[in-house]
Amino acid sequence: MDTNSNQKFQPEYLLNFTIEVFTYFGIPKDHAALAAKILALSDIRGIDSHGVARLYSYVGLLSEGLINPNPKISIAREKKSVATVDGDNGLGLVVGHYANEMAMDKAEKHGSGWVSVCNSNHYGIAGYYSLEALKRDMIGWSMTNTTKLVAPLWGAERMLGTNPIAIAFPGYKEPPVVIDLATSAAAYGKIEIAKRQKEEVPEGWIADKDGNLSTQPEDMINGGALLPLGSTRALGGHKGYALASMVDILTAVLSGANWGPFAPPFALRQEIPTRSVGKGIGHFFGAMEIDGFMDVIEFKKRIDEWISVMRNTKPAKGIEAVLIPGDPEHQEEIKRKKEGIPLNATVISDLKAISIHTGIPFSGH
Amino acid sequence: MDTNSNQKFQPEYLLNFTIEVFTYFGIPKDHAALAAKILALSDIRGIDSHGVARLYSYVGLLSEGLINPNPKISIAREKKSVATVDGDNGLGLVVGHYANEMAMDKAEKHGSGWVSVCNSNHYGIAGYYSLEALKRDMIGWSMTNTTKLVAPLWGAERMLGTNPIAIAFPGYKEPPVVIDLATSAAAYGKIEIAKRQKEEVPEGWIADKDGNLSTQPEDMINGGALLPLGSTRALGGHKGYALASMVDILTAVLSGANWGPFAPPFALRQEIPTRSVGKGIGHFFGAMEIDGFMDVIEFKKRIDEWISVMRNTKPAKGIEAVLIPGDPEHQEEIKRKKEGIPLNATVISDLKAISIHTGIPFSGH
Repeated sequence: MDTNSNQKFQPEYLLNFTIEVFTYFGIPKDHAALAAKILALSDIRGIDSHGVARLYSYVGLLSEGLINPNPKISIAREKKSVATVDGDNGLGLVVGHYANEMAMDKAEKHGSGWVSVCNSNHYGIAGYYSLEALKRDMIGWSMTNTTKLVAPLWGAERMLGTNPIAIAFPGYKEPPVVIDLATSAAAYGKIEIAKRQKEEVPEGWIADKDGNLSTQPEDMINGGALLPLGSTRALGGHKGYALASMVDILTAVLSGANWGPFAPPFALRQEIPTRSVGKGIGHFFGAMEIDGFMDVIEFKKRIDEWISVMRNTKPAKGIEAVLIPGDPEHQEEIKRKKEGIPLNATVISDLKAISIHTGIPFSGH
Repeated sequence: MDTNSNQKFQPEYLLNFTIEVFTYFGIPKDHAALAAKILALSDIRGIDSHGVARLYSYVGLLSEGLINPNPKISIAREKKSVATVDGDNGLGLVVGHYANEMAMDKAEKHGSGWVSVCNSNHYGIAGYYSLEALKRDMIGWSMTNTTKLVAPLWGAERMLGTNPIAIAFPGYKEPPVVIDLATSAAAYGKIEIAKRQKEEVPEGWIADKDGNLSTQPEDMINGGALLPLGSTRALGGHKGYALASMVDILTAVLSGANWGPFAPPFALRQEIPTRSVGKGIGHFFGAMEIDGFMDVIEFKKRIDEWISVMRNTKPAKGIEAVLIPGDPEHQEEIKRKKEGIPLNATVISDLKAISIHTGIPFSGH
């Protein structure tokens, strides 16, 4: 990413602004701090699309009363290591955090914990929840369904979200292996960027409204769809579709949330589904105590060895080295903690608009 | 698949032959029946590569004393809903079945059960174990690591297996959603078939020994590698690599089995790894009681509705209808139960060789 053209901000400054904004909308201080921390983590790890760039969307939904600022998060059903949680239409960042805590508390008691969540909203980066589990020497799983953008293989309309899957494994001396992937071939943000820059996109990212492969961003934006990971039948598009389905079912069918094309939007400008088949969107969290499987230190040392062997894979011609899942975010984190968070002009302008609306000061050029 | 050119066999006939073969090698009758049942299920569901076609490889390893015919499967470590199981180098089909049973027994007691397995061998189709969970109204996960065939993204050598992930969800009136996918872009069998037929393969399936994309099957077979799901960086090859890593770590790093390039081969003709980092290959099984999340009937009805909505996706031009994960296998099952199992000449010749070696009669043309 070209960060040089962007103005940079101290993480702490953005964090405090975000806390004040959430608080302005009636979110209790501790919830606001939590939600802001998750957005900040995304910015620090270089996942620009899920950081303060999303604040404008959250504010839009909060202004319209579409998100409950002070939810009573409750357990709807439970059996020892498993439960369904109702997020009471709270901020997904808050509901997600507490549901993930419940999964980890269960893991402490029962060896593992699994929580399916309904009645929630957009929860930020999936990886945050998996990283939390590392702090407790657990392996943490995190998934969410999202607004429809992806066509099933052989379909010609949006039926599933980009439905991410995250899981993380702790190293001993090495940084953790952090897996956090959307089950679509490409992110929607990349299609928007290509459109703005009047560029084509690679074949395999999108289809037009008739389900034909296209390289023109407009074809996707105007009624087309993203393709699932694997893109085409030949390259395994049925697998990406199956993974997106797995996430949709675990997060939303199992919890009583809106699944598939009925997942509500995460921003005001998005289309409202024609039908409701449940409450809000859904998440799924899992936590497993490493100690229940293997001595924790031994496991971490085995992960270090795994990392070392994978890193020493003979690289393809012209490639410096094979990366470990989580490496790009880890490198970005080191850099951004030193140099600050680069924000582009659109995001700065959105934050200024929030500042004007709320009276909370924000200074960007 | 072109089944017309193949001779067909009654499932029962192949099942009984397989049981006798396993028994001949000292496998107890109940274990032999179990292992044969799993291979038969694969053939019935149209997954030809994992059915009796694999018997020749199992026999090779059993003849050489490389698989323990009468294993003492034991729990190496345990904490309520989670455990590590040592398969005592038994047949993967047997070890897998019992470890999966343990996961389900734990789920009955603790809401969910999670078992990581070391010291095992090739366990057949991943989907078998997930289908077993449906019989107990559970959602069942199944993964295994396998012999190295796949290069990490940007790598130029085989470091990971095709590491499959399976999970299944029960319908009420509809057949279940059955997800069972290898985390590589294509199966190794397809490369072999293309080579035999002197055909090219699609770009995105394989790389040569320097990590360059290739369409020549020989380039992969002679020291090249399969590509992970997503194929290239642009199309999401880092995601397939991450998923293969997830499976490798949960099945083998966590259980104490051989991970990555050190997973032992499942056939005598394959290369023996230069190093051992654990015992045998690894599996990972998970089971969750649906009832702990939602009323079972309600969940099944929601799955039916999900299936119906997805099936009614507007199809792409020239496509009859969007399929549900598991549909192709379900359709094949109906057909093969009526018409028999088609076996090609190579498989028949392998089975005849086993028949000559063991004296167990087998009649194919």
